[in-house]
Amino acid sequence: MKEAADYPFLVNPIPMPSWLVTEENENADRVFAGDEAKVRFTVELAMENVRHETGGPFAAAIFDLRTDRLIAAGVNVVVPSKQSWAHAEMIAFAHAQNKLGRGSLEGCVLASSCEPCAMCNGATPWSGVEELIYGATGDMAESVGFDEGYKGAQWKEAFARRGIRVAGPLLGEDAFAPFALYRQKNGKIY
Amino acid sequence: MKEAADYPFLVNPIPMPSWLVTEENENADRVFAGDEAKVRFTVELAMENVRHETGGPFAAAIFDLRTDRLIAAGVNVVVPSKQSWAHAEMIAFAHAQNKLGRGSLEGCVLASSCEPCAMCNGATPWSGVEELIYGATGDMAESVGFDEGYKGAQWKEAFARRGIRVAGPLLGEDAFAPFALYRQKNGKIY
Repeated sequence: MKEAADYPFLVNPIPMPSWLVTEENENADRVFAGDEAKVRFTVELAMENVRHETGGPFAAAIFDLRTDRLIAAGVNVVVPSKQSWAHAEMIAFAHAQNKLGRGSLEGCVLASSCEPCAMCNGATPWSGVEELIYGATGDMAESVGFDEGYKGAQWKEAFARRGIRVAGPLLGEDAFAPFALYRQKNGKIY
Repeated sequence: MKEAADYPFLVNPIPMPSWLVTEENENADRVFAGDEAKVRFTVELAMENVRHETGGPFAAAIFDLRTDRLIAAGVNVVVPSKQSWAHAEMIAFAHAQNKLGRGSLEGCVLASSCEPCAMCNGATPWSGVEELIYGATGDMAESVGFDEGYKGAQWKEAFARRGIRVAGPLLGEDAFAPFALYRQKNGKIY
């Protein structure tokens, strides 16, 4: 198979807020032990995304399962990028695979501020992550007008059959905070 | 919401094979009347992707429903881009939204050489397309070793509830041709 370097034409570079690059750098040496610490970090990033007005109230991050360290983060940039698929989890996958230089995130966990939608759920096994952990329920997202899509009632069983551990919802009402802030700021629902 | 131009950092530009740019240009004025003509074009692109060794045996395209003209095409570039989510449909969405300068593909149809996997299925409603038409069955893809993922048994009903027309599988055994060629060339399964 030809290498990407052979391709002269590039489509669709994805914008990433500069504050998020700063957050990644500042948290590069931090140890995020346990599921709750990882998910809490993504909930904080989702709050920051709303505060900075750089996208929707969703964030995700990829952590190394062995070291508990951050590899890459992503936030929802659907509106500013004018790309319907630019959800936090997709950006986190893209960004982590870009950083690691490989398409498989073996040995990694995806943490998300919210239960992944149908698209991000479907993308998770392809990413190679070994675990999925998340904060808010899909119902919380839908209660403020977001759409989770149809992913089938047996999605947790489907992950289990692939050997992907799932933990969530986590953090209880704390995970609702980004949605509350977004609603308060009259954010655009898409 | 801040515009993308305010963002100093870009993540993950996606490679697009140069032969595909040529195909797009050469077919810019062609009228693709009916579902079969549109899907047949994507099956031909999937064949080309295998012949050029620029990715897996999958292609997709976005057409204008009113004029039956091509807006943008995409092929699977998972291996060369080292991005697990770089399926044909995702690239077609990204490329079309990039070209049109808007995140919604209202008035458009997604044509795919194969039934979309769980991720691309979930991405379809978010893209704004009004119709989904496809060639090969998911079973055909799985018969040569690809994985379609879990998208729930009621996915066609879920599209119908959203008012998205679905037509497929189409073209019968003709839609299997890209997989046959890929297998013959001992393509990498991922």
